[in-house]
Amino acid sequence: MSKAIPSRSEDYSLWYNELVKKAGLAENSPVRGCMVIKPYGFAIWEKMQQTLDKMFKDTGHSNAYFPLFIPKSFFSREADHVEGFAKECAVVTHYRLKNDEENGGVVVDPDAKLEEELIVRPTSETVIWDSYKNWIQSYRDLPLLINQWANVVRWEMRTRLFLRTAEFLWQEGHTAHATKNEAIEETEQMLNVYADFVENFMALPVTKGVKTANERFAGAVETYCIEAMMQDGKALQAGTSHFLGQNFAKAFDVKFANKEGKEEFVWGTSWGVSTRLMGALIMAHSDDDGLVLPPNLAPIQVVIVPIYRKDEELAAISEVAEKFASELRSKNISVQFDKRDTHKPGWKFAEYELKGVPVRIAIGPKDLQKGTVEIARRDTKEKQFVQQSDTVGFVEKLLQEIQENIHNKAKSFEQENTHKVDTYEEFKELLKKDGGFIYAHWDGTSETEEKIKQETKATIRCIPLNSEKEEGTCIYSGKPSTQRVLFAKAY
Amino acid sequence: MSKAIPSRSEDYSLWYNELVKKAGLAENSPVRGCMVIKPYGFAIWEKMQQTLDKMFKDTGHSNAYFPLFIPKSFFSREADHVEGFAKECAVVTHYRLKNDEENGGVVVDPDAKLEEELIVRPTSETVIWDSYKNWIQSYRDLPLLINQWANVVRWEMRTRLFLRTAEFLWQEGHTAHATKNEAIEETEQMLNVYADFVENFMALPVTKGVKTANERFAGAVETYCIEAMMQDGKALQAGTSHFLGQNFAKAFDVKFANKEGKEEFVWGTSWGVSTRLMGALIMAHSDDDGLVLPPNLAPIQVVIVPIYRKDEELAAISEVAEKFASELRSKNISVQFDKRDTHKPGWKFAEYELKGVPVRIAIGPKDLQKGTVEIARRDTKEKQFVQQSDTVGFVEKLLQEIQENIHNKAKSFEQENTHKVDTYEEFKELLKKDGGFIYAHWDGTSETEEKIKQETKATIRCIPLNSEKEEGTCIYSGKPSTQRVLFAKAY
Repeated sequence: MSKAIPSRSEDYSLWYNELVKKAGLAENSPVRGCMVIKPYGFAIWEKMQQTLDKMFKDTGHSNAYFPLFIPKSFFSREADHVEGFAKECAVVTHYRLKNDEENGGVVVDPDAKLEEELIVRPTSETVIWDSYKNWIQSYRDLPLLINQWANVVRWEMRTRLFLRTAEFLWQEGHTAHATKNEAIEETEQMLNVYADFVENFMALPVTKGVKTANERFAGAVETYCIEAMMQDGKALQAGTSHFLGQNFAKAFDVKFANKEGKEEFVWGTSWGVSTRLMGALIMAHSDDDGLVLPPNLAPIQVVIVPIYRKDEELAAISEVAEKFASELRSKNISVQFDKRDTHKPGWKFAEYELKGVPVRIAIGPKDLQKGTVEIARRDTKEKQFVQQSDTVGFVEKLLQEIQENIHNKAKSFEQENTHKVDTYEEFKELLKKDGGFIYAHWDGTSETEEKIKQETKATIRCIPLNSEKEEGTCIYSGKPSTQRVLFAKAY
Repeated sequence: MSKAIPSRSEDYSLWYNELVKKAGLAENSPVRGCMVIKPYGFAIWEKMQQTLDKMFKDTGHSNAYFPLFIPKSFFSREADHVEGFAKECAVVTHYRLKNDEENGGVVVDPDAKLEEELIVRPTSETVIWDSYKNWIQSYRDLPLLINQWANVVRWEMRTRLFLRTAEFLWQEGHTAHATKNEAIEETEQMLNVYADFVENFMALPVTKGVKTANERFAGAVETYCIEAMMQDGKALQAGTSHFLGQNFAKAFDVKFANKEGKEEFVWGTSWGVSTRLMGALIMAHSDDDGLVLPPNLAPIQVVIVPIYRKDEELAAISEVAEKFASELRSKNISVQFDKRDTHKPGWKFAEYELKGVPVRIAIGPKDLQKGTVEIARRDTKEKQFVQQSDTVGFVEKLLQEIQENIHNKAKSFEQENTHKVDTYEEFKELLKKDGGFIYAHWDGTSETEEKIKQETKATIRCIPLNSEKEEGTCIYSGKPSTQRVLFAKAY
């Protein structure tokens, strides 16, 4: 297989786009802004889904399903919410087509106009809180801990595969609680679940924080987020968890009788991650030869490639390969034995490199003689010969090692590209050079935030949760500040 | 808990509607024709999904995801297809709302009209075959075996929870093959997968057959189906598998170079089952006290209810209960130990009966003394005392027995309500009385089929696959016929 993709240094953006397509992850569809997630890409997403779904269930959540469509009047009930989403809504206005030869064949039937337009959900708070009104009467009905896996639509003018698409897949948790504290605890718990997932499965370090008022979810009191650094130094928001206060409870009149029999409005949260995580996974670890997948999310963890000329050789190699495959599978390791005769070993090596398969085992006639196999790891490209008797244990350990190594590499990269800055000059200089994460003082006003964004394209990614209080002065206005915030250019 | 639902004999239709709501499976949403699938209902659907998904993967299929929206021009490309679906399409015409106080607040922005309207997918053949055009060049790219789990929208005027809703969840398989025979084999294989699933997991016997031309999927050459009998004698179509011939390949110009290098159009299939199966599951087995779930699909297979007055009693019972729970769980049996003090045992008994939990274990202070537990099965309502030392093995066997018993009961019911009929008088008489499945001769014309439907509301459910050839005369026209077909009133 010839070199499939441009290098990162040539054109990082093109590298990403081509990698997504060439590795068989996704492609643009002829439907404006919508993508097709191809089987290999979807297999990774399924692993993400299964892992997250288990984490949600382990923390007491159940799945449910709410309608795709939201009546316009519902959608408008929470003022900030509609303000935030109105500009990017797909609207259903009719429910029938008809044949009209004079007007070019099949047309929308003007007689089938809906009385009230329906919005294709960009997020489901409104339609869900409308249901919660009927589900919640007493403190005994709380907490209500529900998650939904769904497709949502936000009409985007500039789209990029996985990172920003008009339709995307996600999960949205929507919970209801009796007290403010409990709702805040839930918001923070789910942020931690996301952070655990991204660190331990996606092998990507994250910074936890809260958004500024400007960047807050439309309708939330507080938006928590995790931010991860990509290889070009830009930040990518990998998940958000919102404390909704009583905003949606008030908009949809959701009250409960507390233990004393007094009526109160319910407290809410919502939280979500999306197929955007696929973009983060690809961008964070991959190299100029293709994907680098952390073993914990790789659909194929080990590929076995036979090297042979004659059919008798293949038969002998297959016997050994099938034995390894079944032993590895019994340890829950996913293995593909690729004995297709339509492609040469070199082509297969390049193909599995492109697809980011963590471990490749090659077996040839010489290996059979010597009782060895050749094992190559995708992350560092190191190869070594291993005794057949040691292979299964070696691979098991190697997969863990690769998972850790990928994480450590991303962590080092993030550390190298994170800076504290005390003047606006330094700030602008850094952004021109390397980008990365910049911790700087900020005066807390939206005006300053907006000005910095206009002048440098960097935004406040978050006010970090775990950073220490520190007296300082805003790099832009010189006004006093008590904490550094995280600035970066972002996806 | 007071009697929650009307009886089947009182009002079968109301019984179903109330059961779906009271058992916490689903409810109508304020969005016209759309339902909310509640957590308990969704948990059953998830079990169906997981089981089917494994069956699809075991037969070589991969999951992928295609856009929700289909441009109107694509949709119109296959003539029969658009003819079949045009009357029930939700159409997106705009992509933005705006604030317009004079016209009542938030309105659709007339400046944000789409150049080409988008159809919310009622099924995805068109958008998928448009992708296949780029994915398939040579015989090496075939077969292409893809499945998608998705929501689809068909605008229905009269809706019923699970059975007929404007939006529903389903899976749609879309495969492409080099030869006609291979495509037909795939169509039949997937019909068999569906039949296996419905028989062995849903515990419901099915009749396999092909649809008449009238009832064929819009765009298919042949539609295979499985039909199941509900407790009111009506038929419910539980799954369909379509042989598409080269219709979509021709509409979307999907050709491949065969081994001889010659270009040919690709052969296609598509197949689907939906949340309608939930309706079938509920209707087929449940009784006047609530759901009866086959153990293979029950989210909770065993519930343990403690019977106690004093807290010390609960502590002692809990010890035994937790031991059983963990032993059962180690055998992959899902167990809920309900020690809530907010509800009495009698309330809990009724609740789990309503929810169709297959096995209930009750443990009281006397049981502790005697070393027994009381085990009740949901299907027959039989109760018996079992030695604690035998409990785990007993429950394991009982779950299998219940699965078989539910299936046998449905099978007997189907047999009792299946009749061969040779005259139109008998035919009408039977339909007036009991309904059920009627095997009768038909002359093979759409005219006769249509007339019988108008006069009796019974339709040809299928031309059964495994029925013997038999000379006869059409019950309606008296013309010659070579095979009996299956008539029934249907959901």
